[in-house]
Amino acid sequence: MGIRHERSLVPVGISTILPHTAQRIRRLEETLLTSLGRWGYQEIIPPTFEYLDVLSAGLEPEVIEKCYKFADRTTGRILLLRPDVTAQIARIVAMGMVPSRLPLRLCYRTTVFRHEPEHAGREREIFQVGAELIGVDEVAMDGEIIALMIECLRQLGLSAFTISLGHVGFYKALLARSGMSAEGQKRAEQAAARKDLPHLEDILAEEGVPKKDAKAILEAPGLYGREEVLDRGRMLAGRDRELRAALERLTRVYRLLTSSGLHEYLVLDLGEFRGFDYYDGVVFDVFADGIGYELGGGGRYNHLIGRFGRDLPSTGFAFDVDRLFRAMERVDDGLPRPPADVLLSATARHAGQLFRVAQTLRDVGVRVVQEALRVAGPAAIQTALEEGRQMAVPAVVLLGVPGVALDEALMVTGLSTGVRPKGHLKIVRKIVKIKDLPALLWRSSGGVRNDESPRSVRTQAPASKSRS
Amino acid sequence: MGIRHERSLVPVGISTILPHTAQRIRRLEETLLTSLGRWGYQEIIPPTFEYLDVLSAGLEPEVIEKCYKFADRTTGRILLLRPDVTAQIARIVAMGMVPSRLPLRLCYRTTVFRHEPEHAGREREIFQVGAELIGVDEVAMDGEIIALMIECLRQLGLSAFTISLGHVGFYKALLARSGMSAEGQKRAEQAAARKDLPHLEDILAEEGVPKKDAKAILEAPGLYGREEVLDRGRMLAGRDRELRAALERLTRVYRLLTSSGLHEYLVLDLGEFRGFDYYDGVVFDVFADGIGYELGGGGRYNHLIGRFGRDLPSTGFAFDVDRLFRAMERVDDGLPRPPADVLLSATARHAGQLFRVAQTLRDVGVRVVQEALRVAGPAAIQTALEEGRQMAVPAVVLLGVPGVALDEALMVTGLSTGVRPKGHLKIVRKIVKIKDLPALLWRSSGGVRNDESPRSVRTQAPASKSRS
Repeated sequence: MGIRHERSLVPVGISTILPHTAQRIRRLEETLLTSLGRWGYQEIIPPTFEYLDVLSAGLEPEVIEKCYKFADRTTGRILLLRPDVTAQIARIVAMGMVPSRLPLRLCYRTTVFRHEPEHAGREREIFQVGAELIGVDEVAMDGEIIALMIECLRQLGLSAFTISLGHVGFYKALLARSGMSAEGQKRAEQAAARKDLPHLEDILAEEGVPKKDAKAILEAPGLYGREEVLDRGRMLAGRDRELRAALERLTRVYRLLTSSGLHEYLVLDLGEFRGFDYYDGVVFDVFADGIGYELGGGGRYNHLIGRFGRDLPSTGFAFDVDRLFRAMERVDDGLPRPPADVLLSATARHAGQLFRVAQTLRDVGVRVVQEALRVAGPAAIQTALEEGRQMAVPAVVLLGVPGVALDEALMVTGLSTGVRPKGHLKIVRKIVKIKDLPALLWRSSGGVRNDESPRSVRTQAPASKSRS
Repeated sequence: MGIRHERSLVPVGISTILPHTAQRIRRLEETLLTSLGRWGYQEIIPPTFEYLDVLSAGLEPEVIEKCYKFADRTTGRILLLRPDVTAQIARIVAMGMVPSRLPLRLCYRTTVFRHEPEHAGREREIFQVGAELIGVDEVAMDGEIIALMIECLRQLGLSAFTISLGHVGFYKALLARSGMSAEGQKRAEQAAARKDLPHLEDILAEEGVPKKDAKAILEAPGLYGREEVLDRGRMLAGRDRELRAALERLTRVYRLLTSSGLHEYLVLDLGEFRGFDYYDGVVFDVFADGIGYELGGGGRYNHLIGRFGRDLPSTGFAFDVDRLFRAMERVDDGLPRPPADVLLSATARHAGQLFRVAQTLRDVGVRVVQEALRVAGPAAIQTALEEGRQMAVPAVVLLGVPGVALDEALMVTGLSTGVRPKGHLKIVRKIVKIKDLPALLWRSSGGVRNDESPRSVRTQAPASKSRS
């Protein structure tokens, strides 16, 4: 954090994302959204702010405390910047959307806002991508949402990660059975979530929990592993119906995922908790190897939507995009992509031609920075090549320079590696026909249309047969 | 707006964007970002809020008045939700980013927030996509940013639009020459921008503007058209250096764009103004035929970045995404795309197989909704087909139903037109090998990978040779 000079110009905890990072974060988001789309999840865009008195039905006091709030001038009511998308989607579904068919599969990419005084980084404006599977309480739905989360991570190229799988009902029932006070249960949950056993022991002593119950409560947070965790859980559950029901559901979800070939990613955790108290079933967190915080998580919330007036059992998850991005940096080379495939330069007299030629190249998907040169003659070539080098573009093309006819261009490649592997750089200059440029550059840019969106796929590779 | 029942549950002027619309808005944004990327513009993601005392250097009092503001708990300073991205990028560039090379080409997609009590719709949270060309004051740069805006509109499939092109310096100099008070000039600018000539006449009378000057001031807002507007402008300018300089710049930009083949989209407007007072050169607005408000606009701001401490002449533009979307509805059929290409259903006993088969289909780019059926036997088939019909998917595939072996599936097509043209619907049922499904469905889904992001292009069309 360094020393603070005077007052800061930008609020702590939020930050501008500059092009190199923005490009990779957007690509990450797109990959996630593509995966979600392949599973039939449709994007919804919730508003940035909401009325506090409405949304608070879905938020805990601790979350509300951390919200950014301001008065609505028109009504005098308090608005808040959304601190959580799941609560917001619950409100939208309960109040506004009437799906003709359940389950409803929704996804989103957005930011949430939380006042976090002690953190720097981007902890006050958090980028999230998530999914919600709304309306059906079944093992197959719990399985689907977890399999989907795993598939998202695999599509990103991450492989060394673990899904920690539990059921909030198990530990809650264990605490409830012990006869503890409601407040004691809450404190015990928090200590267990942090795996802080000495503190948990103190709480149990204060609450006068019987020895046998205390033993189980202290043992459960350590029950972390494969199938054997379920066996031991059944011993602790005894004949308690709620404990057995939670374990049975967890077992069925685990077995479904195992039979779907996802065994390697799963770890059972009978002390698993999520941060929000609206979770009431199978819950999960995802951790990447060697990173101490979760990259995302989710779980079943069967009664959250009901708080807004319509009971719809649901499950879902969210990723913290910034944390995913940092986890990716460990597996990704992170090489910045050059801002363009070609720098197309022309002397001022050829500015009109510059615009037209640039357009023909972009029409075939080549990314072109166009530039009217301020100098003419041989100096123009040097200026353009120097700029091409600074921009790290794979090719520079010049119009209207000495020795080049009106229907020709000077093409220079090998100035920079661009996206190609390093090591075999050779500067090549040649004079080419302007009409051949689309074919030549389309191929030299890798022959792929960059960042193509479905709508613009109309453009075709040029038919020209010229050799490159 | 209808009758209001009790208090509203959602703030007026913002709204949730539901999947059908969200899908089209995101595609629109992607098309714009793809176009911007092809011109070498790199995305930047600015923070959602800023310190008022910092950003206000780039904002007019009228804009600040409309901002959402709240106190920063840590520092007690006032934060505001961004009302304008250009001012924010100006701050970022002046204070945070030191480009190694000018011009700097940046773009963004984001929302701005303005308190608009009288409007409904999405007028309080406005989606914008825009571009900034920073650091060079040249005719070619003015031309580039306008040509880029035109190309963005063309990529969207819009053709019936007009760019209204002017120079704020012309009218300002005309008013300044008349000897009016500063306040009178401001009021006259506003009246001229609204083309409210009677009011303008009153202001000129109040200010005691000489008859000859008044005549020019009243004529200029009507100077709207092609080349002849420039001739008439030169008559009004006489020997005034500022007026002549503004006209000369406008003429050169207009001719460059004309020589680049963009003549058909341009109309000159000597009364053209933009909403922000930081514009100080060539400015422009875009209108679609038959729509009464602008879809976007921009212009040159040579001194805005300087207000944050570093003088960098620049130009840029922004689109109002929601307005563009509404303009597109007039040229677009607006058919919703089905949420998936295939509904893949299996009886509960085959749930594990369901997950695995779904994955093989998604691996080749087919969008699959997976579903574990709650019923078995012939009823399972009816249930799945009915759901497929409701979802409007082109194909339903069933695993584990009567008459289908373990390595087979029942495939039903023609239930719904999906994205295909209407008119020739024929329900076809056949039993196929599971291993042939990727090839069959990849082709029936149109053989294109949907919503593909560059990262996930690894997947290949299946090699299987089975006939469809």
